[in-house]
Amino acid sequence: MKNTVDRRDFLQKSSLAVAGSLLLPQLGKSAIQNDAKVRLGFIGVGLRGRNHLHNTLAFPMVEVTCICDIDPQAITAAQKILREAGKKEAAVYGKNEHDFENMVKRDDLDGVVIATPWEWHVPMALATMKAGKYAGLEVSATVKLQESWDLVNTFEKTGAHCMLLENVCYRRDVMAVLNMVRSNLFGEITHLQCGYQHDLRGVKFNNGKQPYGGGVEFGANAFSEAKWRTQHSVDRNGDLYPTHGLGPVAEMININRGNQFLYLTSMASKGIGLHKYVVDKGGEKHPNAKVNFKLGDVVQTMIKCANGETILITHDTNSPRPYSLGFRVQGANGLWMDDGNQIYVENVSAKHDVWESDEAYMKKYDHAFWKQFEQEALGAGHGGMDYFVLRDFILSIQNKTTPPIDVYDAAAWSAISPLSEQSIAKGSTAVAIPDFTRGKWKTRKPIFALETT
Amino acid sequence: MKNTVDRRDFLQKSSLAVAGSLLLPQLGKSAIQNDAKVRLGFIGVGLRGRNHLHNTLAFPMVEVTCICDIDPQAITAAQKILREAGKKEAAVYGKNEHDFENMVKRDDLDGVVIATPWEWHVPMALATMKAGKYAGLEVSATVKLQESWDLVNTFEKTGAHCMLLENVCYRRDVMAVLNMVRSNLFGEITHLQCGYQHDLRGVKFNNGKQPYGGGVEFGANAFSEAKWRTQHSVDRNGDLYPTHGLGPVAEMININRGNQFLYLTSMASKGIGLHKYVVDKGGEKHPNAKVNFKLGDVVQTMIKCANGETILITHDTNSPRPYSLGFRVQGANGLWMDDGNQIYVENVSAKHDVWESDEAYMKKYDHAFWKQFEQEALGAGHGGMDYFVLRDFILSIQNKTTPPIDVYDAAAWSAISPLSEQSIAKGSTAVAIPDFTRGKWKTRKPIFALETT
Repeated sequence: MKNTVDRRDFLQKSSLAVAGSLLLPQLGKSAIQNDAKVRLGFIGVGLRGRNHLHNTLAFPMVEVTCICDIDPQAITAAQKILREAGKKEAAVYGKNEHDFENMVKRDDLDGVVIATPWEWHVPMALATMKAGKYAGLEVSATVKLQESWDLVNTFEKTGAHCMLLENVCYRRDVMAVLNMVRSNLFGEITHLQCGYQHDLRGVKFNNGKQPYGGGVEFGANAFSEAKWRTQHSVDRNGDLYPTHGLGPVAEMININRGNQFLYLTSMASKGIGLHKYVVDKGGEKHPNAKVNFKLGDVVQTMIKCANGETILITHDTNSPRPYSLGFRVQGANGLWMDDGNQIYVENVSAKHDVWESDEAYMKKYDHAFWKQFEQEALGAGHGGMDYFVLRDFILSIQNKTTPPIDVYDAAAWSAISPLSEQSIAKGSTAVAIPDFTRGKWKTRKPIFALETT
Repeated sequence: MKNTVDRRDFLQKSSLAVAGSLLLPQLGKSAIQNDAKVRLGFIGVGLRGRNHLHNTLAFPMVEVTCICDIDPQAITAAQKILREAGKKEAAVYGKNEHDFENMVKRDDLDGVVIATPWEWHVPMALATMKAGKYAGLEVSATVKLQESWDLVNTFEKTGAHCMLLENVCYRRDVMAVLNMVRSNLFGEITHLQCGYQHDLRGVKFNNGKQPYGGGVEFGANAFSEAKWRTQHSVDRNGDLYPTHGLGPVAEMININRGNQFLYLTSMASKGIGLHKYVVDKGGEKHPNAKVNFKLGDVVQTMIKCANGETILITHDTNSPRPYSLGFRVQGANGLWMDDGNQIYVENVSAKHDVWESDEAYMKKYDHAFWKQFEQEALGAGHGGMDYFVLRDFILSIQNKTTPPIDVYDAAAWSAISPLSEQSIAKGSTAVAIPDFTRGKWKTRKPIFALETT
């Protein structure tokens, strides 16, 4: 039920699937209640952007009117997806790095999916919102703290929404656990854990030809993510990628909607994994063996919340290890851990203080989204999560509603990254987390995944 | 292989065993090289003290010359253990709370095992050391920070040793993992996790007649540990019990012997579990339902070490949950987790980034102590750990050597408790951890569990 698919494996399979049009996801009949068209544009049609583009094919109300990328090969591959699905090719932008500013001004456009290097996320989202369109922003939304404020301020000024496309909020087990929390199975929640524990060494380095591994290049000599993502491990020591873990647990305790992050403290272990990888694979004389990677191998962040809960986030991407988002959800009556798929609930579990498998619970608390759209989701990426996150973005546009993961979530969840850097730089001191809602969290009501159709 | 025995179950079984003299552990022939007598005294012969007393029966060189307790029933039960084993009854002290000061001055005494309420540990250890005897101190050694300095200063003044009786350092899987670390299986260590995750609600409350559960009394109206231990949950918010987790991982990265704790930061969730327990079991009108328990339900502490490692400690004793010390030992080549008994080592494990069972590794790296003394250890407490910790204390006395877990370890490991309180009280700010060795850690060499006989 859970997605532990290696992204590399997934993307390879997905590319094949797209090429052969084998796995086109289908939209459930009852999914959409009105017939309004949703006209989407894409900024960034690299591997991730094309994954989203492919998933739009499941939604008949969607028309992809325009795409933007400075890489002509990416544009070609994207048009091929549309063409092979019998769709009209999209208008193309990409004559320079700022051509997206022209694209977002088009009239035949309701929303824009942004899947670009992290440092471009906010400028592109701001341009989209200023043009009055819905922005669908890949994770993490921001790199710098000010960018979170920029997102919020621009939304409040323009009224145009920004949805963070945090797919893990829609992971099947995570949604079932959200149901468990909402059903009070664990009692009052006290503590949560999550993280991003993923051996990314083969993502951070490649040979300039293939997206993953095969060499120890990054930056200009590399291909795909290693072109830009790895530099963050050179320049920054903090949790570089908090939202896959934090988003789901934030939904469980209603952050920004009745609850709020108050402060955090972060600590980083020494960082030896990336240097070791370069030396092991490329030799001591490779130029990248001289690079000083600032990022610690394991970075942990503790967050205190207004309603008294604590959250531990672990970022662990430089070392060999099995993939795990390390979820733990704990309350006064019991707890769930995704490592081991274990659960214990007092007076419910058969044996006193003994784990049991979470399998029966996952079935019992399976979320309505998954019950209804399991088949449709199967063709999409990351075990189906990508179907649901895109669906919610499209429905928000179609219904002209606030997206379930909104600009305040994008701002607050992503801000943990620069704030963790601050804490580490100051010797793990506590750092206040801004209230991006400016007090509105006290009256805002939860909306995520409440609909049952 | 691992001890997940509930302490309550263990003690009940152990009491039966002692009564019937069924499970007397035996000393291996090759264990002791010299014939010198080791004359022990006991301060505190409650349940824990009598457990140690029973374990001395495995060591023929040990003579228990004196015991001290203010509870006459505890004295009677202790004498019974000696008598039924064919030993001479011990001289008795206990006429008031300070009678231990008279006992430690006896001439027929080489070392004293101290198993009393936490707040008495240090005064009793200091008296023992000032009398020139080895102090064997139950965990945690200290409650207040100054007490760590008192232990160190008294050792440095008197030359009398203090060993922290941290039994988990001798847990079979933990010792095997220590061997793995020393064999460089995980490569350079970057991050460790540990903790004390144990539903203690039935320990913190009882009915005044039985040691565990059956009521919601603590303090004067309660029996055994609940008489004194629970008050710490009323008065203190911090990691009350760090050494079961921290001791083992500190040995793995040579804290005080080539490495040092630098600073920590702690965070506590809200504390609702103890109040809920009182109300659920005793009703809203029970006087203890008015008590404000200061201790957070989950307290986490991050420690930064001089050699760049980070340690996460979790203290989780107020909620229903399966027992786990939550170990994780991670390096540049792989990692082990005791939750799930899982291990992954790059280029050793069969599948890329996929966990495997740690079973074969535990056999391969089984520590010499366990290979040699498995049978002897089986009769002792906590899955055999108690045999080994007592053995090391006795051998240190017999050989007039520094105990493998010495006064600096007792001081540093235990100090995490008051320092975590400080951090939480100041909003999770970072707090420096004193160097109790005053620089000697730079040249001190590891000694724990290096002997092979």
